[in-house]
Amino acid sequence: MRRFTSRLLHLFSPNKELVSQLEHLLGFTPKHIPYYQLALMHRSKIEEIAQNNERLEFLGDAILGSIIADYLFKKYPYETEGYLTEMRSRIVRRETLNNIALRMGLQKLVQYNQNDKGLSRSHIFGNALEAMIGAVYLDQGFHKTKSYILKQIVKPYIDIEALENSDTNYKNQFLSWAQKNNHEVSFDTVDEKTEGTRKVFTIAISLNGDIVSEGSGFNKKEAGQVAAQAAIDKLSISNGKNSQ
Amino acid sequence: MRRFTSRLLHLFSPNKELVSQLEHLLGFTPKHIPYYQLALMHRSKIEEIAQNNERLEFLGDAILGSIIADYLFKKYPYETEGYLTEMRSRIVRRETLNNIALRMGLQKLVQYNQNDKGLSRSHIFGNALEAMIGAVYLDQGFHKTKSYILKQIVKPYIDIEALENSDTNYKNQFLSWAQKNNHEVSFDTVDEKTEGTRKVFTIAISLNGDIVSEGSGFNKKEAGQVAAQAAIDKLSISNGKNSQ
Repeated sequence: MRRFTSRLLHLFSPNKELVSQLEHLLGFTPKHIPYYQLALMHRSKIEEIAQNNERLEFLGDAILGSIIADYLFKKYPYETEGYLTEMRSRIVRRETLNNIALRMGLQKLVQYNQNDKGLSRSHIFGNALEAMIGAVYLDQGFHKTKSYILKQIVKPYIDIEALENSDTNYKNQFLSWAQKNNHEVSFDTVDEKTEGTRKVFTIAISLNGDIVSEGSGFNKKEAGQVAAQAAIDKLSISNGKNSQ
Repeated sequence: MRRFTSRLLHLFSPNKELVSQLEHLLGFTPKHIPYYQLALMHRSKIEEIAQNNERLEFLGDAILGSIIADYLFKKYPYETEGYLTEMRSRIVRRETLNNIALRMGLQKLVQYNQNDKGLSRSHIFGNALEAMIGAVYLDQGFHKTKSYILKQIVKPYIDIEALENSDTNYKNQFLSWAQKNNHEVSFDTVDEKTEGTRKVFTIAISLNGDIVSEGSGFNKKEAGQVAAQAAIDKLSISNGKNSQ
């Protein structure tokens, strides 16, 4: 790590300002600053794999996933594995994380090539947030990372109740968008198979006769939700209000 | 947890024997036995969600994923995120975990409905191993779980070098199986798109003219591997030697 610290430091001068920005962002004083500098370095600035944040993003994503799993496991003692999996995927979705990163102001700290216009659509701030979580883990260990995530991310930025109640929202969102834009929609069960001891259903959504997405789940409702969410992502539909 | 302990205890008498089996399996003395009893209870014995191991499997899967991510991140300081992701997926594959569970002898401890013949094909022992990891995490915390996984699972059961070198194996495995059985095979690039700042390729594998699988990756080689792995799974081809 040390061998490229000096190079990174040049990109973040004065360093004192960075430390104070990190303190504000993290809620604690970081120990080993190069971890965080690495977390804030997007590939569009430095291609070299050991010098940009992609490896830390991999680590942070895994750590975040396990901490959210622990949080949900304890919060919902009587909910199924399927419910916990669905709730986690809503929390750690790239869009959700990117929005949180923007609300935190992480875009002011991330080093990226601002001339590359495609980047703003590619969740680079959410990815940098995951990399920051990786940095916190390396710097502070699992236990401290857990309290950082719960206090600084989940509590202020995640509306668990809204996520719970968005249970049928993807389908509703998609249908209300389609109605508004006079599209014909159908949800069709296209596959039904047995995995181990369970049935798995696949539902395809057609828009004016063309299949736009598919989704699978242990029941048709779940499969329809997954398919609707995929359609929303694919067609870039926002909260059922915007038309396109 | 306590309210169904007594019921579980009946299924595992004498309890002393279980503790000694767990000690042998884990390499340490567990504190809170009901966590482990829950981890060993398959849904085919008890449908009730709070009394079988599916929730613990969710938790254990996430914890295992983060510990393996940490391990790989440190082991390969110059490898890409894509490489780390691929290596992790090879380690935590359901088949790999199921084989490890069988080699550990976990099948002797798991409580399941032995009359249900479908179960033996559904990785229930690998799933129970994940649930055991969840139990270790709840009983002992992250740090102890990390050393348990590294010492009792990775070191004795995971051949990292073999996994590294299986880099091109899926494609080779598939091709050698096809040749042996006189099948015609083609690998075709069926999609090429840009995700964020990167190209993503999709390759489809055809067997005697019919598509059997698809795979995507950041380059064609990677996509071909993913597609070949999917074809191997789908057609139940074992190590390129068995014909079917």
